[in-house]
Amino acid sequence: MKAHTEYLVFNTVKKIEFVRITGQVENAVKKSGVKEGLVLVNPMHITAAVIVNDNESGLIQDYQDVLERLVPYRAKYRHNVGEDNAAAHIWRQLMGHQVVLPITKGELDLGAWEQVFYCEFDGQRNKRVLIKVIGE
Amino acid sequence: MKAHTEYLVFNTVKKIEFVRITGQVENAVKKSGVKEGLVLVNPMHITAAVIVNDNESGLIQDYQDVLERLVPYRAKYRHNVGEDNAAAHIWRQLMGHQVVLPITKGELDLGAWEQVFYCEFDGQRNKRVLIKVIGE
Amino acid sequence: MKAHTEYLVFNTVKKIEFVRITGQVENAVKKSGVKEGLVLVNPMHITAAVIVNDNESGLIQDYQDVLERLVPYRAKYRHNVGEDNAAAHIWRQLMGHQVVLPITKGELDLGAWEQVFYCEFDGQRNKRVLIKVIGE
Repeated sequence: MKAHTEYLVFNTVKKIEFVRITGQVENAVKKSGVKEGLVLVNPMHITAAVIVNDNESGLIQDYQDVLERLVPYRAKYRHNVGEDNAAAHIWRQLMGHQVVLPITKGELDLGAWEQVFYCEFDGQRNKRVLIKVIGE
Repeated sequence: MKAHTEYLVFNTVKKIEFVRITGQVENAVKKSGVKEGLVLVNPMHITAAVIVNDNESGLIQDYQDVLERLVPYRAKYRHNVGEDNAAAHIWRQLMGHQVVLPITKGELDLGAWEQVFYCEFDGQRNKRVLIKVIGE
Repeated sequence: MKAHTEYLVFNTVKKIEFVRITGQVENAVKKSGVKEGLVLVNPMHITAAVIVNDNESGLIQDYQDVLERLVPYRAKYRHNVGEDNAAAHIWRQLMGHQVVLPITKGELDLGAWEQVFYCEFDGQRNKRVLIKVIGE
């Protein structure tokens, strides 16, 4: 079995931002030399998510509109004593916080429109994402 | 390490439909010959989800009622310019888009009521689900 | 490849309860002898979730407040004929039902604030969580 680990760092310009990282995950898979296996893409901070969805700017705004409507960013939360990011913690759960992707014949085995995104919900500071490839 | 990959194709009668696929995942595990490992079940389209929950028709309707109430299928979305499926993209995130299941002693190691479902949110066309088994 | 499987049992005092289980997952990783790999933590019951988030009591109450507001526990559901736990089934989907965690150099490779929680949404009875470690 082979294993390969990478840590990406993001420091987004905006507090809330969606960053496409499919290419970085593909690069990690290439470097791993794994032909058949799985790759986990997991944010190491708990106010961010990694998702797979469409690279379409309208939809990316729709996500934020829905999250804001269901769990308003600036509402009152018990967590927000000294902190101000409770909604970011909750948004990342609603969006699904991590993904595991398949590797077939040495490539990420994704459908035509599957794109990997880092979803930052409390940015403007260094935050890490772990990529772990295992397989053979 | 062994690996085994299958692609299922679904073309549902209805736009929104829940299809139980536990048996198909079990078959893939059997074919793989893996005794101890993991199996990823991942929709290759971004308006569908794979979940684990109860095979109970009332609950399956409850899911759709809740999703429709939180994120109405026919509301206005920025994505719906030329498209009409923004809500399907969002529903699949709220439901959790994929699952990874354990294999023990050559069998899917599920609890008594854990059933795997393909959740189609924009159907009536061919859509693929990838099953990737790895282990030994 | 090595594999190691454990079954945890929880019987919570309250119907709804968040139990921190990071230590139990770390112990399973230690026992497995795996240095590089993945660990799946999956509830075997479909009215519970396993998540990664903050060990902060205010936030844990915030999650319950948000879930109650979006999907009231005592509302009418089609599933609740003979049963009374439809909301628990739905909450576990909204929270993301399972996690896969990375193992690096023999340790759970988590960020500083990543803590694993068992989220019980229909407790006061024995319920199982499966931990499956694979790697080398």
